[in-house]
Amino acid sequence: MISLDALNEGSADDFVEALSQIYEHGRWVAEAAVADRPFPSVAALATALRSAVAAAGEQAQMVLVAGHPDLADKTGGAGALTGESRSEQVGAGLDRLSEDELAEFHRLKDAYRSKFGYPFIICVRRHGRDSIFNSAEARLENEPDREFETALAEINRIAALRLADTVEGADMGVHGHLSTHVLDSHSGKPAKGIPVRLLELSSRSHPRLVAEAITNQDGRTGEPLIGGRPLPIARYELHFRIGAYFAERNVPLADPPFLDEIPIRFGIAVPEGRYHVPLLITPWSYSTYRGS
Amino acid sequence: MISLDALNEGSADDFVEALSQIYEHGRWVAEAAVADRPFPSVAALATALRSAVAAAGEQAQMVLVAGHPDLADKTGGAGALTGESRSEQVGAGLDRLSEDELAEFHRLKDAYRSKFGYPFIICVRRHGRDSIFNSAEARLENEPDREFETALAEINRIAALRLADTVEGADMGVHGHLSTHVLDSHSGKPAKGIPVRLLELSSRSHPRLVAEAITNQDGRTGEPLIGGRPLPIARYELHFRIGAYFAERNVPLADPPFLDEIPIRFGIAVPEGRYHVPLLITPWSYSTYRGS
Amino acid sequence: MISLDALNEGSADDFVEALSQIYEHGRWVAEAAVADRPFPSVAALATALRSAVAAAGEQAQMVLVAGHPDLADKTGGAGALTGESRSEQVGAGLDRLSEDELAEFHRLKDAYRSKFGYPFIICVRRHGRDSIFNSAEARLENEPDREFETALAEINRIAALRLADTVEGADMGVHGHLSTHVLDSHSGKPAKGIPVRLLELSSRSHPRLVAEAITNQDGRTGEPLIGGRPLPIARYELHFRIGAYFAERNVPLADPPFLDEIPIRFGIAVPEGRYHVPLLITPWSYSTYRGS
Amino acid sequence: MISLDALNEGSADDFVEALSQIYEHGRWVAEAAVADRPFPSVAALATALRSAVAAAGEQAQMVLVAGHPDLADKTGGAGALTGESRSEQVGAGLDRLSEDELAEFHRLKDAYRSKFGYPFIICVRRHGRDSIFNSAEARLENEPDREFETALAEINRIAALRLADTVEGADMGVHGHLSTHVLDSHSGKPAKGIPVRLLELSSRSHPRLVAEAITNQDGRTGEPLIGGRPLPIARYELHFRIGAYFAERNVPLADPPFLDEIPIRFGIAVPEGRYHVPLLITPWSYSTYRGS
Repeated sequence: MISLDALNEGSADDFVEALSQIYEHGRWVAEAAVADRPFPSVAALATALRSAVAAAGEQAQMVLVAGHPDLADKTGGAGALTGESRSEQVGAGLDRLSEDELAEFHRLKDAYRSKFGYPFIICVRRHGRDSIFNSAEARLENEPDREFETALAEINRIAALRLADTVEGADMGVHGHLSTHVLDSHSGKPAKGIPVRLLELSSRSHPRLVAEAITNQDGRTGEPLIGGRPLPIARYELHFRIGAYFAERNVPLADPPFLDEIPIRFGIAVPEGRYHVPLLITPWSYSTYRGS
Repeated sequence: MISLDALNEGSADDFVEALSQIYEHGRWVAEAAVADRPFPSVAALATALRSAVAAAGEQAQMVLVAGHPDLADKTGGAGALTGESRSEQVGAGLDRLSEDELAEFHRLKDAYRSKFGYPFIICVRRHGRDSIFNSAEARLENEPDREFETALAEINRIAALRLADTVEGADMGVHGHLSTHVLDSHSGKPAKGIPVRLLELSSRSHPRLVAEAITNQDGRTGEPLIGGRPLPIARYELHFRIGAYFAERNVPLADPPFLDEIPIRFGIAVPEGRYHVPLLITPWSYSTYRGS
Repeated sequence: MISLDALNEGSADDFVEALSQIYEHGRWVAEAAVADRPFPSVAALATALRSAVAAAGEQAQMVLVAGHPDLADKTGGAGALTGESRSEQVGAGLDRLSEDELAEFHRLKDAYRSKFGYPFIICVRRHGRDSIFNSAEARLENEPDREFETALAEINRIAALRLADTVEGADMGVHGHLSTHVLDSHSGKPAKGIPVRLLELSSRSHPRLVAEAITNQDGRTGEPLIGGRPLPIARYELHFRIGAYFAERNVPLADPPFLDEIPIRFGIAVPEGRYHVPLLITPWSYSTYRGS
Repeated sequence: MISLDALNEGSADDFVEALSQIYEHGRWVAEAAVADRPFPSVAALATALRSAVAAAGEQAQMVLVAGHPDLADKTGGAGALTGESRSEQVGAGLDRLSEDELAEFHRLKDAYRSKFGYPFIICVRRHGRDSIFNSAEARLENEPDREFETALAEINRIAALRLADTVEGADMGVHGHLSTHVLDSHSGKPAKGIPVRLLELSSRSHPRLVAEAITNQDGRTGEPLIGGRPLPIARYELHFRIGAYFAERNVPLADPPFLDEIPIRFGIAVPEGRYHVPLLITPWSYSTYRGS
């Protein structure tokens, strides 16, 4: 990573070199912004890059769009995928699609390319697997002008995330936050030692484990369940194992206990959002809510 | 079904005939109770039959125990299973065990018969599938004297349920009750039209659908989810689909909604118990508890 | 009380006599309805009486309105107040107004009579003390035509309640229901033995005790807190003493306990409504909601 | 205030001067600790002072106890009350007792002095008004030896709080924290703009306003309701006005609204504790719990 100071104070060449991959095959975007230095913040730098794209005209924009690498490309031909693209796609699980999913996805991508003449572009880090499929289906219905804007907006989102990965400091609001908190209302204390698991649900395949933790003495997980990155749009399930917790505290329980493993199913719609999903428990009741 | 009055006022033969299958191959139990007529209640009749068994001595009791039909008998040989036994076992799903489960169950039953010299007897209507396996494993650890008492107690439980099926009127406390209730705290009204499904969970096989319903204008299901029979000891999951409910009422929702399908996982430990498992919902929160 | 059958089958004179006080000084209303006998239900009878008033024309209606007794009349002159009116006003606490309240109320009534030319009429059984004052203030702002309709509607409400008091059987939807229920989520059982008090709040005077009860083994009060009559429109406070309940069960508590006396403040706006206000408690948490 | 460094590095005289009032009339306590410098933390300094008292022997301790100023002294004679004592007593409201309370308190203090021979000493900043009375009554029942230890312990508590007021830096665990948080589960967001009031309740006099605030966009009050000082042991009531909040958001409400002003009554038993008392609201339900 590089500091904003280094970008502001280094040579123009160093600036362009450091930011040449923010926009895929878009070294010229960095070149267009170099004259605006110094930038007071990373957000201002992001705006400058976005403005350079906006000012470049439709032809240059189309080159940017048309040159974007294909998602879940079976061939993965040399040079076709930059390192950034590859890791983004792996993170979204696009390298682990089943045969059927891959076939469905290729049908969607082919239909998209037929209709619009360029590849389907989506900021995969903001989407769970189902949401990538759903977005492709929904965007296939767009008018060409509207869809071209959507494709450019996705490229800008990808760029903003890459910038946050490249330059030290604030996240510019491109990251989200998902956390939980377990309160034991039987004893009036935070519940310590509760195993928590976060799964991403999918209508197409099995749940996928996203995070695991044990609550600490504040009833929280040390790290947020998801933090420092966008929250992929998806349906999730949180699992809390509370049966052993109460059993170890000699609370009289039935056999099987009335409550043992508690699943909380919820959807995330805003990747940059702050989601706090606490759980209030007794051996005989629980409640949850979207907190803050 | 027959009325208590008819049992009290009919001939002794009719009485014995009507109750000859309450205890499996136990016509003599009915014969021993006939002299105590009239019975003021079905519960008093049940007590009289139970007392007749208790007074019969260990040898007669052993005949009762040893003659009890085998659970999940592959052969199902003619005459081996009375009609009552067959329908009880079918109700518990013992006719739908997988190959692996069947093999495991036969291992348990064989070990049991080797140790105690008589078949494994359990009032199957009081147990879910997992609980039948767990009971067999647990009871294999018993001392012979203790286990003989347990086997007799199970026979008495089977008899009490058969009596409730045979004689018109009260359930003598042998039946349980499982119900739910959905309150919409967003509008302050019972939630009408919520699809509810009840599944029995199992560590050995897939969840099994037990009941389905749609909430009425009181937010309740017309019939209890389980009523008029014991609640099988098991882990359950209730599913409530609330996303469409709020969408139809034009409540602003995210996409995907924060809450859509709500699973409530709970255990039932007392087959004769009254379990009320209500759900209080808003689009952003819910709570549940063991109610009454 | 008299039965519907007796009204339907008795002489016309008996019918009129029995219903002569349903409308204050309105024997003629009963006379007008007698020809429509027999009535299939008390509700149908109420409709017939209401229709007779509606058909009688403005002059007769004005006589009905103008002849209605004054609320909280200081003089209480002989003959001015029928027995029904007197007990209704006592029930609403209008006989216990303070000097200041009485003065305020007389100002309002005088202003009302100056503007509209007839006394302020309100079905007092449907209102708490504050609500009577608030209604008078609000209705003073009405146009004369609108207010005349309102006055007639109140007379019809008074008549419907008197009819429910006079004729045996159903309440025709003129009664409300207020109940509570205390669940102990610490032990998973209904909370038995909780002292409950219901107070009517007022911005003008001290809270007034409306009902007192102790929860039974179902966590409910034997009788509803208010039943068999309309729920007066008012703000209320329910008090639940839970500290001793948990102390007696040897639950470890702080000193003073975190929760001891729980006040629930709520408003009733629909006198004919069904209000269920349950309380879910642990020593460290509670929740309440409008139930059903 | 003075820094720990200055205490450690200044002259012995300056050290003693700075700490001469930590123990009332106890300059010698500071003198006894000066030789142990430097202290790695304020907590270590507090321990050293406490140890000096413990090591001084019963006679010196008795002088410390007997010389402590009287609580709520009517005369307030010159020299009797140090500045620290005066402000502590004012903070606890002991300067605002009614005639009756003052009389009751003097009876208690006189009885105490008769029995034990020295004045009733209590760290008033850790107690609400009722708790001061209750403590006096309870301690009157103590055996003399036990009570002498209690009196010394209170003096040490007073000293610890004075030390926290005098030396810059950490609170050594002598301060508590009371906060709240309002979540709106109708919209799934923190509730902004809710007026909150905290009252201390008393069985002897009217509620006393302790803090007032409006919730911010996080649904919290900017400052904790009580922070930077011990939480006086007492019963409290929090008031939240939520009716206007929902009305301004065009949520359909009844008139009067079902919920308008919500009172939460709770007790604080641990002055150094962390109490978080959140409120989850909809127009038709709410819940609260001891959070963390």
